[in-house]
Amino acid sequence: MHILVTNDDGVTAPGLLALAQALRSLGEVSVLAPDRNWSASGHVKTLYRPLRVKKTILADGSFAFASDGAPSDCVALALLGLLEKNVDLVISGINPNANIGYDVTYSGTVTAAMEAAIGGVPGIAVSLDSPENHQAALDYSVAARVGKEVAAMVIERGLPKGTLLNVNVPYLSYDEIQGIRVTRQGLRIYRDALVRRVDPQGKPYYWIGGQSPTGVPEEGTDYGALKAGFVSITPLQLDLTAYNTLQDLQKWWS
Amino acid sequence: MHILVTNDDGVTAPGLLALAQALRSLGEVSVLAPDRNWSASGHVKTLYRPLRVKKTILADGSFAFASDGAPSDCVALALLGLLEKNVDLVISGINPNANIGYDVTYSGTVTAAMEAAIGGVPGIAVSLDSPENHQAALDYSVAARVGKEVAAMVIERGLPKGTLLNVNVPYLSYDEIQGIRVTRQGLRIYRDALVRRVDPQGKPYYWIGGQSPTGVPEEGTDYGALKAGFVSITPLQLDLTAYNTLQDLQKWWS
Repeated sequence: MHILVTNDDGVTAPGLLALAQALRSLGEVSVLAPDRNWSASGHVKTLYRPLRVKKTILADGSFAFASDGAPSDCVALALLGLLEKNVDLVISGINPNANIGYDVTYSGTVTAAMEAAIGGVPGIAVSLDSPENHQAALDYSVAARVGKEVAAMVIERGLPKGTLLNVNVPYLSYDEIQGIRVTRQGLRIYRDALVRRVDPQGKPYYWIGGQSPTGVPEEGTDYGALKAGFVSITPLQLDLTAYNTLQDLQKWWS
Repeated sequence: MHILVTNDDGVTAPGLLALAQALRSLGEVSVLAPDRNWSASGHVKTLYRPLRVKKTILADGSFAFASDGAPSDCVALALLGLLEKNVDLVISGINPNANIGYDVTYSGTVTAAMEAAIGGVPGIAVSLDSPENHQAALDYSVAARVGKEVAAMVIERGLPKGTLLNVNVPYLSYDEIQGIRVTRQGLRIYRDALVRRVDPQGKPYYWIGGQSPTGVPEEGTDYGALKAGFVSITPLQLDLTAYNTLQDLQKWWS
Protein backbone atom coordinates (compact mmCIF):
# COMPACT_ATOMS: atom_id res chain seq x y z
CA MET A 1 0.00 0.00 0.00
CA HIS A 2 1.60 3.21 -1.25
CA ILE A 3 -0.12 6.37 0.00
CA LEU A 4 0.51 9.84 -1.42
CA VAL A 5 -0.02 12.73 0.99
CA THR A 6 -0.41 16.25 -0.36
CA ASN A 7 -2.11 19.48 0.69
CA ASP A 8 -2.78 23.05 -0.40
CA ASP A 9 -1.08 24.89 2.46
CA GLY A 10 2.41 23.89 1.43
CA VAL A 11 4.77 21.09 2.35
CA THR A 12 5.85 22.69 5.65
CA ALA A 13 2.30 22.91 7.04
CA PRO A 14 1.83 21.10 10.37
CA GLY A 15 -1.45 19.56 9.21
CA LEU A 16 0.36 17.66 6.46
CA LEU A 17 2.97 16.30 8.84
CA ALA A 18 0.34 15.10 11.33
CA LEU A 19 -1.52 13.30 8.55
CA ALA A 20 1.60 11.73 7.03
CA GLN A 21 2.72 10.45 10.43
CA ALA A 22 -0.68 8.94 11.23
CA LEU A 23 -0.81 7.12 7.88
CA ARG A 24 2.55 5.40 8.22
CA SER A 25 0.96 2.52 10.11
CA LEU A 26 -1.17 1.75 7.00
CA GLY A 27 1.61 1.53 4.43
CA GLU A 28 4.41 3.38 2.71
CA VAL A 29 3.78 7.12 2.71
CA SER A 30 5.19 9.53 0.12
CA VAL A 31 4.77 13.28 0.46
CA LEU A 32 4.63 15.46 -2.66
CA ALA A 33 3.10 18.83 -1.91
CA PRO A 34 3.30 22.44 -3.10
CA ASP A 35 6.24 24.55 -1.97
CA ARG A 36 3.85 27.35 -0.95
CA ASN A 37 0.24 28.08 -0.02
CA TRP A 38 -2.35 27.41 -2.76
CA SER A 39 -5.55 27.92 -0.73
CA ALA A 40 -8.69 28.55 -2.82
CA SER A 41 -6.59 27.84 -5.89
CA GLY A 42 -9.09 25.52 -7.56
CA HIS A 43 -8.53 22.55 -9.80
CA VAL A 44 -5.40 23.37 -11.76
CA LYS A 45 -3.57 21.53 -14.53
CA THR A 46 -0.35 23.39 -15.26
CA LEU A 47 0.29 22.99 -18.98
CA TYR A 48 1.96 26.24 -20.00
CA ARG A 49 5.00 26.19 -17.78
CA PRO A 50 7.33 23.45 -16.57
CA LEU A 51 7.15 22.20 -13.00
CA ARG A 52 10.02 21.81 -10.58
CA VAL A 53 10.23 19.17 -7.87
CA LYS A 54 12.76 19.36 -5.04
CA LYS A 55 13.60 17.01 -2.19
CA THR A 56 13.02 18.51 1.22
CA ILE A 57 12.93 17.37 4.85
CA LEU A 58 9.90 17.64 7.10
CA ALA A 59 10.03 18.71 10.76
CA ASP A 60 10.27 15.07 11.91
CA GLY A 61 13.32 14.42 9.70
CA SER A 62 11.44 12.45 7.02
CA PHE A 63 11.89 13.07 3.29
CA ALA A 64 9.32 14.82 1.16
CA PHE A 65 9.02 16.32 -2.33
CA ALA A 66 8.05 19.95 -2.85
CA SER A 67 6.77 21.19 -6.22
CA ASP A 68 6.07 24.67 -7.54
CA GLY A 69 2.82 23.31 -8.99
CA ALA A 70 -0.68 23.36 -7.52
CA PRO A 71 -1.98 20.55 -5.26
CA SER A 72 -3.67 18.88 -8.26
CA ASP A 73 -0.41 19.17 -10.21
CA CYS A 74 1.37 17.33 -7.38
CA VAL A 75 -1.15 14.50 -7.67
CA ALA A 76 -0.87 14.45 -11.48
CA LEU A 77 2.94 14.31 -11.32
CA ALA A 78 2.81 11.42 -8.87
CA LEU A 79 0.21 9.45 -10.84
CA LEU A 80 2.07 10.06 -14.12
CA GLY A 81 5.10 8.30 -12.70
CA LEU A 82 7.27 10.84 -10.90
CA LEU A 83 7.27 8.69 -7.77
CA GLU A 84 8.25 5.53 -9.70
CA LYS A 85 6.14 3.35 -7.40
CA ASN A 86 2.43 3.25 -8.25
CA VAL A 87 0.17 5.25 -5.94
CA ASP A 88 -2.73 3.30 -4.39
CA LEU A 89 -4.39 6.09 -2.41
CA VAL A 90 -4.17 9.90 -2.28
CA ILE A 91 -4.91 11.82 0.91
CA SER A 92 -4.90 15.58 0.95
CA GLY A 93 -4.75 17.73 4.08
CA ILE A 94 -5.13 18.37 6.86
CA ASN A 95 -6.59 21.72 5.85
CA PRO A 96 -6.79 24.13 8.82
CA ASN A 97 -10.35 25.16 7.88
CA ALA A 98 -13.48 23.24 6.94
CA ASN A 99 -14.23 22.63 3.24
CA ILE A 100 -17.98 22.41 2.99
CA GLY A 101 -20.72 23.33 0.54
CA TYR A 102 -19.52 25.17 -2.55
CA ASP A 103 -15.97 25.27 -1.12
CA VAL A 104 -15.28 21.97 -2.83
CA THR A 105 -14.54 23.39 -6.29
CA TYR A 106 -12.34 26.22 -4.94
CA SER A 107 -10.47 24.09 -2.44
CA GLY A 108 -6.96 22.96 -3.31
CA THR A 109 -7.37 20.24 -0.67
CA VAL A 110 -10.49 18.81 -2.30
CA THR A 111 -9.38 19.28 -5.91
CA ALA A 112 -6.21 17.29 -5.14
CA ALA A 113 -8.48 14.38 -4.17
CA MET A 114 -10.53 15.08 -7.32
CA GLU A 115 -7.39 14.75 -9.43
CA ALA A 116 -6.78 11.36 -7.82
CA ALA A 117 -10.31 10.23 -8.74
CA ILE A 118 -9.81 11.39 -12.35
CA GLY A 119 -6.58 9.39 -12.38
CA GLY A 120 -8.44 6.29 -11.20
CA VAL A 121 -7.04 6.28 -7.64
CA PRO A 122 -9.16 6.70 -4.47
CA GLY A 123 -8.89 10.25 -3.11
CA ILE A 124 -9.66 11.58 0.36
CA ALA A 125 -9.59 15.24 1.47
CA VAL A 126 -9.32 15.91 5.21
CA SER A 127 -10.11 19.30 6.75
CA LEU A 128 -10.34 20.54 10.31
CA ASP A 129 -13.22 22.80 11.30
CA SER A 130 -11.08 25.00 13.52
CA PRO A 131 -12.70 27.81 15.50
CA GLU A 132 -12.69 31.26 13.92
CA ASN A 133 -9.92 33.55 15.16
CA HIS A 134 -8.09 30.65 16.84
CA GLN A 135 -4.76 32.13 17.95
CA ALA A 136 -2.73 29.22 19.34
CA ALA A 137 -1.23 26.44 17.19
CA LEU A 138 -3.94 24.07 16.00
CA ASP A 139 -4.01 20.52 17.33
CA TYR A 140 -4.22 18.21 14.30
CA SER A 141 -3.93 14.94 16.22
CA VAL A 142 -7.65 14.10 16.29
CA ALA A 143 -8.16 14.92 12.60
CA ALA A 144 -5.07 12.86 11.75
CA ARG A 145 -6.48 9.88 13.67
CA VAL A 146 -9.84 10.26 11.91
CA GLY A 147 -8.07 10.58 8.55
CA LYS A 148 -6.22 7.37 9.23
CA GLU A 149 -9.45 5.54 10.17
CA VAL A 150 -11.17 6.70 6.99
CA ALA A 151 -8.13 5.73 4.92
CA ALA A 152 -8.11 2.26 6.49
CA MET A 153 -11.78 1.82 5.55
CA VAL A 154 -11.14 2.94 1.96
CA ILE A 155 -8.15 0.60 1.70
CA GLU A 156 -10.36 -2.27 2.87
CA ARG A 157 -13.44 -1.52 0.74
CA GLY A 158 -12.32 0.72 -2.13
CA LEU A 159 -14.32 3.61 -3.58
CA PRO A 160 -16.63 3.56 -6.60
CA LYS A 161 -14.99 4.88 -9.78
CA GLY A 162 -15.10 8.67 -10.07
CA THR A 163 -15.85 9.15 -6.37
CA LEU A 164 -13.79 10.90 -3.70
CA LEU A 165 -14.41 11.53 -0.02
CA ASN A 166 -14.53 14.99 1.52
CA VAL A 167 -13.90 14.54 5.25
CA ASN A 168 -14.39 17.36 7.76
CA VAL A 169 -13.50 16.94 11.42
CA PRO A 170 -14.87 19.12 14.22
CA TYR A 171 -12.34 20.78 16.53
CA LEU A 172 -13.05 18.51 19.50
CA SER A 173 -11.17 15.89 21.46
CA TYR A 174 -11.49 12.35 20.11
CA ASP A 175 -13.88 11.42 22.93
CA GLU A 176 -16.06 14.48 22.44
CA ILE A 177 -16.70 13.62 18.77
CA GLN A 178 -20.25 12.25 18.45
CA GLY A 179 -19.41 9.84 15.63
CA ILE A 180 -19.28 9.80 11.85
CA ARG A 181 -22.06 10.99 9.55
CA VAL A 182 -22.14 10.31 5.83
CA THR A 183 -23.54 13.57 4.49
CA ARG A 184 -24.51 15.52 1.43
CA GLN A 185 -22.91 18.80 0.42
CA GLY A 186 -24.62 21.60 2.34
CA LEU A 187 -25.21 25.24 1.54
CA ARG A 188 -22.29 27.55 2.08
CA ILE A 189 -23.03 31.21 2.70
CA TYR A 190 -20.26 33.49 1.52
CA ARG A 191 -20.07 36.93 3.04
CA ASP A 192 -17.50 38.35 0.66
CA ALA A 193 -17.29 42.09 0.24
CA LEU A 194 -15.35 44.23 -2.21
CA VAL A 195 -12.72 46.28 -0.39
CA ARG A 196 -11.46 49.23 -2.43
CA ARG A 197 -8.10 50.77 -1.54
CA VAL A 198 -5.64 53.18 -3.07
CA ASP A 199 -1.94 52.39 -3.29
CA PRO A 200 0.87 54.86 -2.36
CA GLN A 201 0.98 55.91 -6.04
CA GLY A 202 -2.70 56.88 -5.94
CA LYS A 203 -3.86 53.89 -8.00
CA PRO A 204 -6.82 51.74 -6.95
CA TYR A 205 -6.62 48.09 -5.97
CA TYR A 206 -9.19 45.64 -4.67
CA TRP A 207 -9.45 42.87 -2.11
CA ILE A 208 -12.07 40.18 -2.00
CA GLY A 209 -12.67 40.69 1.72
CA GLY A 210 -15.57 40.47 4.14
CA GLN A 211 -16.38 38.02 6.90
CA SER A 212 -15.52 34.31 6.90
CA PRO A 213 -18.13 32.16 5.20
CA THR A 214 -20.81 30.48 7.23
CA GLY A 215 -23.31 27.77 6.26
CA VAL A 216 -26.79 26.38 6.74
CA PRO A 217 -26.50 23.69 9.49
CA GLU A 218 -29.19 21.52 7.92
CA GLU A 219 -29.71 17.89 9.01
CA GLY A 220 -27.94 15.50 6.65
CA THR A 221 -25.39 17.99 5.39
CA ASP A 222 -21.66 18.40 5.98
CA TYR A 223 -22.12 21.63 7.92
CA GLY A 224 -25.04 20.24 9.92
CA ALA A 225 -22.98 17.23 11.01
CA LEU A 226 -20.00 19.37 12.02
CA LYS A 227 -22.15 21.73 14.07
CA ALA A 228 -23.66 18.72 15.88
CA GLY A 229 -20.17 17.46 16.77
CA PHE A 230 -19.88 14.72 14.13
CA VAL A 231 -17.21 14.01 11.57
CA SER A 232 -18.82 14.58 8.15
CA ILE A 233 -17.87 12.37 5.22
CA THR A 234 -19.32 13.59 1.94
CA PRO A 235 -18.86 11.40 -1.12
CA LEU A 236 -18.32 13.64 -4.15
CA GLN A 237 -18.57 12.73 -7.82
CA LEU A 238 -16.93 14.05 -10.95
CA ASP A 239 -20.19 14.16 -12.89
CA LEU A 240 -21.68 17.62 -12.33
CA THR A 241 -24.63 17.15 -14.69
CA ALA A 242 -27.79 18.71 -13.23
CA TYR A 243 -29.90 15.65 -14.03
CA ASN A 244 -33.03 17.17 -12.44
CA THR A 245 -33.11 19.90 -15.06
CA LEU A 246 -32.37 17.79 -18.16
CA GLN A 247 -36.00 17.14 -19.03
CA ASP A 248 -37.10 20.75 -18.63
CA LEU A 249 -34.20 22.04 -20.68
CA GLN A 250 -34.84 19.47 -23.41
CA LYS A 251 -38.28 21.08 -23.88
CA TRP A 252 -36.63 24.46 -24.49
CA TRP A 253 -34.89 23.14 -27.58
CA SER A 254 -37.38 20.62 -28.93
CA MET B 1 -30.45 43.51 -19.12
CA HIS B 2 -26.81 43.87 -18.10
CA ILE B 3 -24.57 41.06 -19.37
CA LEU B 4 -21.04 40.43 -18.12
CA VAL B 5 -18.69 38.79 -20.61
CA THR B 6 -15.47 37.19 -19.39
CA ASN B 7 -13.15 34.38 -20.46
CA ASP B 8 -10.02 32.49 -19.48
CA ASP B 9 -7.85 33.27 -22.49
CA GLY B 10 -7.44 36.92 -21.64
CA VAL B 11 -9.25 40.12 -22.58
CA THR B 12 -7.56 40.40 -25.99
CA ALA B 13 -8.72 36.95 -27.19
CA PRO B 14 -10.77 37.03 -30.42
CA GLY B 15 -13.34 34.60 -28.99
CA LEU B 16 -14.27 37.10 -26.29
CA LEU B 17 -14.73 39.94 -28.77
CA ALA B 18 -16.95 37.83 -31.04
CA LEU B 19 -19.15 36.88 -28.08
CA ALA B 20 -19.38 40.42 -26.69
CA GLN B 21 -20.34 41.79 -30.10
CA ALA B 22 -23.04 39.16 -30.64
CA LEU B 23 -24.59 39.83 -27.22
CA ARG B 24 -24.97 43.58 -27.68
CA SER B 25 -28.35 43.08 -29.36
CA LEU B 26 -29.66 41.52 -26.11
CA GLY B 27 -28.71 44.28 -23.69
CA GLU B 28 -25.87 46.26 -22.20
CA VAL B 29 -22.62 44.30 -22.32
CA SER B 30 -19.71 44.84 -19.92
CA VAL B 31 -16.40 43.05 -20.39
CA LEU B 32 -14.24 42.24 -17.35
CA ALA B 33 -11.70 39.56 -18.16
CA PRO B 34 -8.20 38.47 -17.14
CA ASP B 35 -5.24 40.39 -18.50
CA ARG B 36 -3.58 37.09 -19.48
CA ASN B 37 -4.26 33.42 -20.23
CA TRP B 38 -5.67 31.36 -17.32
CA SER B 39 -6.50 28.13 -19.18
CA ALA B 40 -6.94 25.07 -16.93
CA SER B 41 -6.64 27.41 -13.96
CA GLY B 42 -9.62 26.00 -12.06
CA HIS B 43 -12.05 27.72 -9.73
CA VAL B 44 -10.03 30.39 -8.00
CA LYS B 45 -10.88 32.87 -5.27
CA THR B 46 -7.94 35.21 -4.81
CA LEU B 47 -7.89 36.11 -1.14
CA TYR B 48 -4.19 36.51 -0.33
CA ARG B 49 -3.24 39.27 -2.72
CA PRO B 50 -5.00 42.39 -3.94
CA LEU B 51 -6.44 42.54 -7.46
CA ARG B 52 -5.90 45.25 -10.02
CA VAL B 53 -8.43 46.30 -12.63
CA LYS B 54 -7.50 48.46 -15.61
CA LYS B 55 -9.52 49.99 -18.41
CA THR B 56 -8.56 48.76 -21.83
CA ILE B 57 -9.86 48.95 -25.41
CA LEU B 58 -10.86 45.94 -27.49
CA ALA B 59 -10.03 45.53 -31.18
CA ASP B 60 -13.38 47.05 -32.20
CA GLY B 61 -12.74 50.21 -30.15
CA SER B 62 -15.10 49.29 -27.29
CA PHE B 63 -14.13 49.64 -23.62
CA ALA B 64 -13.33 46.68 -21.40
CA PHE B 65 -11.84 46.01 -17.99
CA ALA B 66 -8.80 43.78 -17.54
CA SER B 67 -7.93 42.27 -14.17
CA ASP B 68 -4.87 40.40 -12.93
CA GLY B 69 -7.22 37.93 -11.25
CA ALA B 70 -8.55 34.61 -12.51
CA PRO B 71 -11.78 34.34 -14.58
CA SER B 72 -13.76 33.49 -11.43
CA ASP B 73 -12.20 36.50 -9.68
CA CYS B 74 -13.42 38.72 -12.53
CA VAL B 75 -16.95 37.44 -11.98
CA ALA B 76 -16.67 37.86 -8.19
CA LEU B 77 -15.41 41.44 -8.57
CA ALA B 78 -18.30 42.30 -10.90
CA LEU B 79 -20.96 40.68 -8.70
CA LEU B 80 -19.53 42.31 -5.57
CA GLY B 81 -20.13 45.73 -7.09
CA LEU B 82 -17.09 46.73 -9.10
CA LEU B 83 -19.26 47.41 -12.15
CA GLU B 84 -21.73 49.54 -10.13
CA LYS B 85 -24.67 48.28 -12.21
CA ASN B 86 -26.06 44.88 -11.15
CA VAL B 87 -25.15 41.99 -13.41
CA ASP B 88 -28.12 39.94 -14.72
CA LEU B 89 -26.25 37.30 -16.70
CA VAL B 90 -22.64 36.11 -17.00
CA ILE B 91 -21.31 34.58 -20.22
CA SER B 92 -17.82 33.20 -20.42
CA GLY B 93 -15.96 32.42 -23.62
CA ILE B 94 -15.65 31.72 -26.39
CA ASN B 95 -13.01 29.18 -25.45
CA PRO B 96 -11.00 27.98 -28.48
CA ASN B 97 -11.31 24.33 -27.36
CA ALA B 98 -14.18 22.18 -26.17
CA ASN B 99 -14.80 21.86 -22.42
CA ILE B 100 -16.36 18.46 -21.93
CA GLY B 101 -16.34 15.67 -19.38
CA TYR B 102 -14.03 16.25 -16.44
CA ASP B 103 -12.73 19.44 -18.08
CA VAL B 104 -15.44 21.37 -16.28
CA THR B 105 -13.65 21.69 -12.94
CA TYR B 106 -10.30 22.63 -14.51
CA SER B 107 -11.74 25.04 -17.04
CA GLY B 108 -11.47 28.75 -16.33
CA THR B 109 -14.29 29.26 -18.83
CA VAL B 110 -16.66 26.95 -16.97
CA THR B 111 -15.61 27.97 -13.44
CA ALA B 112 -16.35 31.61 -14.32
CA ALA B 113 -19.94 30.54 -15.03
CA MET B 114 -19.84 28.48 -11.80
CA GLU B 115 -18.89 31.60 -9.86
CA ALA B 116 -21.92 33.36 -11.38
CA ALA B 117 -24.20 30.53 -10.20
CA ILE B 118 -22.73 30.73 -6.68
CA GLY B 119 -23.41 34.47 -6.76
CA GLY B 120 -27.03 33.82 -7.72
CA VAL B 121 -26.74 34.97 -11.34
CA PRO B 122 -27.30 32.72 -14.40
CA GLY B 123 -24.00 31.64 -15.90
CA ILE B 124 -23.22 30.27 -19.37
CA ALA B 125 -19.87 28.94 -20.63
CA VAL B 126 -19.36 28.80 -24.41
CA SER B 127 -16.59 26.75 -26.02
CA LEU B 128 -15.73 25.94 -29.62
CA ASP B 129 -14.73 22.39 -30.53
CA SER B 130 -12.05 23.48 -32.95
CA PRO B 131 -10.12 20.86 -34.94
CA GLU B 132 -6.84 19.68 -33.49
CA ASN B 133 -3.77 21.36 -34.98
CA HIS B 134 -5.89 24.05 -36.64
CA GLN B 135 -3.37 26.55 -37.99
CA ALA B 136 -5.40 29.46 -39.39
CA ALA B 137 -7.30 31.98 -37.24
CA LEU B 138 -10.43 30.37 -35.79
CA ASP B 139 -13.85 31.56 -36.97
CA TYR B 140 -15.88 32.33 -33.86
CA SER B 141 -18.93 33.73 -35.67
CA VAL B 142 -21.07 30.57 -35.48
CA ALA B 143 -20.29 29.95 -31.81
CA ALA B 144 -21.02 33.61 -31.06
CA ARG B 145 -24.42 33.32 -32.76
CA VAL B 146 -25.20 30.13 -30.82
CA GLY B 147 -24.05 31.79 -27.59
CA LYS B 148 -26.42 34.66 -28.26
CA GLU B 149 -29.34 32.30 -28.93
CA VAL B 150 -28.70 30.38 -25.70
CA ALA B 151 -28.38 33.66 -23.79
CA ALA B 152 -31.69 34.88 -25.22
CA MET B 153 -33.37 31.66 -24.03
CA VAL B 154 -31.89 32.00 -20.55
CA ILE B 155 -32.95 35.65 -20.36
CA GLU B 156 -36.50 34.60 -21.27
CA ARG B 157 -36.79 31.56 -19.00
CA GLY B 158 -34.13 31.89 -16.32
CA LEU B 159 -32.10 29.03 -14.86
CA PRO B 160 -32.82 27.02 -11.70
CA LYS B 161 -30.81 28.19 -8.67
CA GLY B 162 -27.31 26.69 -8.53
CA THR B 163 -27.35 25.68 -12.21
CA LEU B 164 -25.13 26.84 -15.05
CA LEU B 165 -24.98 25.89 -18.71
CA ASN B 166 -21.91 24.45 -20.39
CA VAL B 167 -22.30 25.05 -24.12
CA ASN B 168 -20.01 23.45 -26.71
CA VAL B 169 -20.29 24.29 -30.39
CA PRO B 170 -18.92 22.09 -33.20
CA TYR B 171 -16.60 23.74 -35.70
CA LEU B 172 -19.12 23.80 -38.53
CA SER B 173 -20.99 26.44 -40.50
CA TYR B 174 -24.32 27.48 -38.99
CA ASP B 175 -26.22 25.50 -41.63
CA GLU B 176 -24.14 22.38 -41.13
CA ILE B 177 -24.96 22.25 -37.40
CA GLN B 178 -27.50 19.46 -36.82
CA GLY B 179 -29.28 21.23 -33.97
CA ILE B 180 -29.05 21.54 -30.20
CA ARG B 181 -28.83 18.61 -27.79
CA VAL B 182 -29.27 18.91 -24.04
CA THR B 183 -26.68 16.49 -22.76
CA ARG B 184 -25.04 15.00 -19.73
CA GLN B 185 -21.35 15.30 -18.94
CA GLY B 186 -19.50 12.62 -20.87
CA LEU B 187 -16.30 10.76 -20.19
CA ARG B 188 -13.11 12.59 -20.98
CA ILE B 189 -10.01 10.55 -21.69
CA TYR B 190 -6.82 12.32 -20.78
CA ARG B 191 -3.63 11.18 -22.44
CA ASP B 192 -1.23 13.14 -20.26
CA ALA B 193 2.33 11.98 -20.00
CA LEU B 194 5.16 13.08 -17.78
CA VAL B 195 7.92 14.71 -19.82
CA ARG B 196 11.27 14.86 -17.99
CA ARG B 197 13.86 17.40 -19.13
CA VAL B 198 17.08 18.87 -17.85
CA ASP B 199 17.71 22.63 -17.82
CA PRO B 200 20.96 24.28 -19.02
CA GLN B 201 22.20 24.14 -15.41
CA GLY B 202 21.74 20.38 -15.33
CA LYS B 203 18.68 20.47 -13.06
CA PRO B 204 15.54 18.44 -13.85
CA TYR B 205 12.17 19.94 -14.69
CA TYR B 206 8.88 18.40 -15.75
CA TRP B 207 6.07 19.07 -18.17
CA ILE B 208 2.59 17.62 -18.03
CA GLY B 209 2.64 16.73 -21.72
CA GLY B 210 1.24 14.03 -23.93
CA GLN B 211 -1.49 14.05 -26.55
CA SER B 212 -4.63 16.22 -26.46
CA PRO B 213 -7.49 14.66 -24.52
CA THR B 214 -10.14 12.71 -26.33
CA GLY B 215 -13.50 11.40 -25.12
CA VAL B 216 -16.10 8.66 -25.33
CA PRO B 217 -18.67 9.80 -27.97
CA GLU B 218 -21.56 8.15 -26.17
CA GLU B 219 -25.18 8.97 -27.06
CA GLY B 220 -26.64 11.58 -24.72
CA THR B 221 -23.30 13.09 -23.74
CA ASP B 222 -21.61 16.39 -24.54
CA TYR B 223 -18.88 14.70 -26.57
CA GLY B 224 -21.36 12.41 -28.35
CA ALA B 225 -23.46 15.39 -29.45
CA LEU B 226 -20.44 17.33 -30.70
CA LYS B 227 -19.14 14.39 -32.71
CA ALA B 228 -22.60 14.02 -34.32
CA GLY B 229 -22.54 17.69 -35.36
CA PHE B 230 -24.83 19.06 -32.63
CA VAL B 231 -24.37 21.93 -30.21
CA SER B 232 -24.23 20.36 -26.73
CA ILE B 233 -25.77 22.16 -23.78
CA THR B 234 -24.97 20.48 -20.47
CA PRO B 235 -26.66 21.86 -17.35
CA LEU B 236 -24.21 21.64 -14.45
CA GLN B 237 -24.93 21.88 -10.74
CA LEU B 238 -22.93 23.06 -7.76
CA ASP B 239 -23.91 20.07 -5.64
CA LEU B 240 -21.27 17.39 -6.25
CA THR B 241 -22.65 14.91 -3.71
CA ALA B 242 -22.42 11.34 -5.04
CA TYR B 243 -26.00 10.53 -3.99
CA ASN B 244 -25.81 7.00 -5.45
CA THR B 245 -23.15 6.04 -2.94
CA LEU B 246 -24.66 7.63 0.18
CA GLN B 247 -26.53 4.52 1.30
CA ASP B 248 -23.60 2.16 0.82
CA LEU B 249 -21.23 4.46 2.65
CA GLN B 250 -23.68 4.90 5.49
CA LYS B 251 -23.43 1.15 6.10
CA TRP B 252 -19.64 1.44 6.47
CA TRP B 253 -20.04 3.67 9.51
CA SER B 254 -23.21 2.34 11.11
